Amino acid sequence: MEKKTLDVQGMSCGHCKAAVEGALKKLAGVSAAEAHLETGKVDVTFDEGKVTVAAMKEAIEEQGYDVIA
Amino acid sequence: MEKKTLDVQGMSCGHCKAAVEGALKKLAGVSAAEAHLETGKVDVTFDEGKVTVAAMKEAIEEQGYDVIA
Repeated sequence: MEKKTLDVQGMSCGHCKAAVEGALKKLAGVSAAEAHLETGKVDVTFDEGKVTVAAMKEAIEEQGYDVIA
Repeated sequence: MEKKTLDVQGMSCGHCKAAVEGALKKLAGVSAAEAHLETGKVDVTFDEGKVTVAAMKEAIEEQGYDVIA
């Protein structure tokens, strides 16, 4: 399992946190996702044989948030 | 049909807007609800024989927002 922290812009409330975490957890290969509203950081634990960072960024962007790193 | 504007605190994003509008529209007697994020105002159109303002406030508060007027 790999761990990565993404920087996400625009998460403003608990619904946003749930939307981002939910979109990530739906991806096969993502075993954990936790978004932090105060910092915009999203910690993801994933299997790099099953899912790419690009796919995770895309899932977040589809929810309407910008991934800046 | 009666119209009323409620003042709601804590709506910060599109999910919040949808949560508040959705909770109001679920109430029998509410025919329209529109929340405005910039102002915190929520416009409701309702049948006062079927639903009370108190019930509408309660529905919003159950979603985690404060109704200040």
